[in-house]
Amino acid sequence: MRFLIAQSGGPTAVINASLVGAIQRAKEKGHEIFGSLYGIEGILNSKIAPLNFERDELERISHTPGAFLGSCRHKLPNDPTDEEYDMIFKKIKEEKIDAFLYIGGNDSMDAVSKLFHQAENREIPLIVNGIPKTIDNDLMKTDHCPGFVSSAKFLNVIASEFVIDSFSYSTFPICVIEVMGRDTGWLSISLKYVEKLVDGLKVLTYVPEKPISEEKMIEDVKRYSKQPLLVAVSEGIKNEKGEYFHSTNTMDAFGHPKLGGVGEYVSHILQKVKKVKFVNPSFTQRAASHFVSHLDFEEAKMVGAQAIDISESGKSGLFMAIERVENDYLSKVNPISVDEVANKVKCVPDSFLTEDSTEFMRYISPLLKELEAFPSLSRRNWMQ
Amino acid sequence: MRFLIAQSGGPTAVINASLVGAIQRAKEKGHEIFGSLYGIEGILNSKIAPLNFERDELERISHTPGAFLGSCRHKLPNDPTDEEYDMIFKKIKEEKIDAFLYIGGNDSMDAVSKLFHQAENREIPLIVNGIPKTIDNDLMKTDHCPGFVSSAKFLNVIASEFVIDSFSYSTFPICVIEVMGRDTGWLSISLKYVEKLVDGLKVLTYVPEKPISEEKMIEDVKRYSKQPLLVAVSEGIKNEKGEYFHSTNTMDAFGHPKLGGVGEYVSHILQKVKKVKFVNPSFTQRAASHFVSHLDFEEAKMVGAQAIDISESGKSGLFMAIERVENDYLSKVNPISVDEVANKVKCVPDSFLTEDSTEFMRYISPLLKELEAFPSLSRRNWMQ
Repeated sequence: MRFLIAQSGGPTAVINASLVGAIQRAKEKGHEIFGSLYGIEGILNSKIAPLNFERDELERISHTPGAFLGSCRHKLPNDPTDEEYDMIFKKIKEEKIDAFLYIGGNDSMDAVSKLFHQAENREIPLIVNGIPKTIDNDLMKTDHCPGFVSSAKFLNVIASEFVIDSFSYSTFPICVIEVMGRDTGWLSISLKYVEKLVDGLKVLTYVPEKPISEEKMIEDVKRYSKQPLLVAVSEGIKNEKGEYFHSTNTMDAFGHPKLGGVGEYVSHILQKVKKVKFVNPSFTQRAASHFVSHLDFEEAKMVGAQAIDISESGKSGLFMAIERVENDYLSKVNPISVDEVANKVKCVPDSFLTEDSTEFMRYISPLLKELEAFPSLSRRNWMQ
Repeated sequence: MRFLIAQSGGPTAVINASLVGAIQRAKEKGHEIFGSLYGIEGILNSKIAPLNFERDELERISHTPGAFLGSCRHKLPNDPTDEEYDMIFKKIKEEKIDAFLYIGGNDSMDAVSKLFHQAENREIPLIVNGIPKTIDNDLMKTDHCPGFVSSAKFLNVIASEFVIDSFSYSTFPICVIEVMGRDTGWLSISLKYVEKLVDGLKVLTYVPEKPISEEKMIEDVKRYSKQPLLVAVSEGIKNEKGEYFHSTNTMDAFGHPKLGGVGEYVSHILQKVKKVKFVNPSFTQRAASHFVSHLDFEEAKMVGAQAIDISESGKSGLFMAIERVENDYLSKVNPISVDEVANKVKCVPDSFLTEDSTEFMRYISPLLKELEAFPSLSRRNWMQ
């Protein structure tokens, strides 16, 4: 078979592990595999080339951050008669592609869904399947998304280090960290795990799913201001009116507002309570391959490889969801219809947003187990 | 002997390695060693306790970020008759301390110098020695400072990951990173090393030592805007009038202006040339013990241990400078008079700030050799 693979949306620290997982499996099975430069735009711009790399090159690529093939934020037309589809299928035919694999998030799965249905309607024998990728962890029907665990692991370690650094002085400041997450608070609540890493620390997390007034936030913080406190805010948190805490009033290609700056705004508000120290890891949280989660890396490779196997069996329109087989810990790929994922958003459920975080910790702890090995995160009160 | 040890100033990722180096050496030699809580303030506040930890606890402490004993920014009085000195020497006598060791930067070495001379003048048999520590790398007479190499290693890896992440899209932005450095640009120019890690990248570094006008900065950036470009700015860069690019007009306890926000300001300016992406690692750059430099860690332990040996031999008023014995790479401790270090600042020399960075790379490359092992930083143009 002749495969074409592409990457789309915001990169993760393991997006290239999925790419390499697919390339390696394709080669093992004797298939040919091509890459499209800058996502689906490579098909439109005739930027397609074979992915012939030596074993050690593949190893290097798998550990490289960013989208190795190049990424895009290109939305396919809603009109099924749009000539963009004619161009795409013409190119696919010219290149004799049998299967197209797209590594991406919910916007990218919109493209997978559209191409799958268009191919069916046009009776074009093209297999189209989706490979999950997003640090936001907001894809439906999958236990979690490749990329999320590495970001959560990195954010947890740097947040712990930031907090412990702040223990250095006799007056403990409020530590504020801004994390990515436009619509969902998965990365923000992942920082609840810092309570397990740093003795005596309280972590307050604010997420887009639960609007919060400035007054209520200040009240929360005051309640814990006597003890070491970390406040984690998603970039997309909203006030009691459902408006963004801080918006730059610009939109991205999908019509989503571009965010940023909320952490500084929150820091400014909380200074009314106590001294605040603030960090915004920004792009480093999605690119930290130097501290990649090994679990995440292996799962990212697994979903890439599985997409080859599924396509080989003739199945199309599928999304490689991750299913947790044993909580502590075994997972497998469970392919489901991409229509269940495309354009949908998995919010953090209410049961994970309770004051008592038992249920969320049951979910996240097996994923972040690698952090237990970090002696740097211990903390002793050497003088009582 | 009875030792008293304390930590002062901004923490580093290896400040506790120096502490543990001293504790371990003291124990080996059969000495007693006590800690002072929050630097020299612990002496004034009678917060002194023995540092009795098991081997595995010491191992954990050595890998912990922040100042384990607690830190302070306390300036000792210039007036030698001030009663603060009476209080300190009274406490030292009560606790029967023979030697006081202070881990810190140039402000902390001011305290070491003052206590050393005061003890001499008052004919008090107290040995006082200084152990270097600062991510700023701005202490005189030492090849480099424990803490600097770990920060530089972490900044280099996250800057590389940030840049490679930015390669993902077809339009390459200007990548801007703000790093710590109030008076000196050591951390900023350390990022020249990213050129070795990322193929085809140009790194422009701006440092407090070389004032720069906004116009000249824009001109520089325009010259390289066709290629991947990383712009590193120290928080303390100054304009052509010698004023800070961006100042919050507040002062710290030593009368130094508190800085921050310059990276965002520079990003704003450079947006006139091209799209800009910006990160500010902030406190994470001094606390990243998860990615500590092993060379730095070992040297930090070495200067701590050596301070015990030197004090044991009866010498006082010394600072444990690091001397590079072989460029690639062997170092040893070379104790020098603390007066050569106290309150002085080692600026980046002109020979390191030339367009051709050969001489600086000769200095920094052996220190950052551990980064060569990072396959994640490779970059291929898979499609020409």
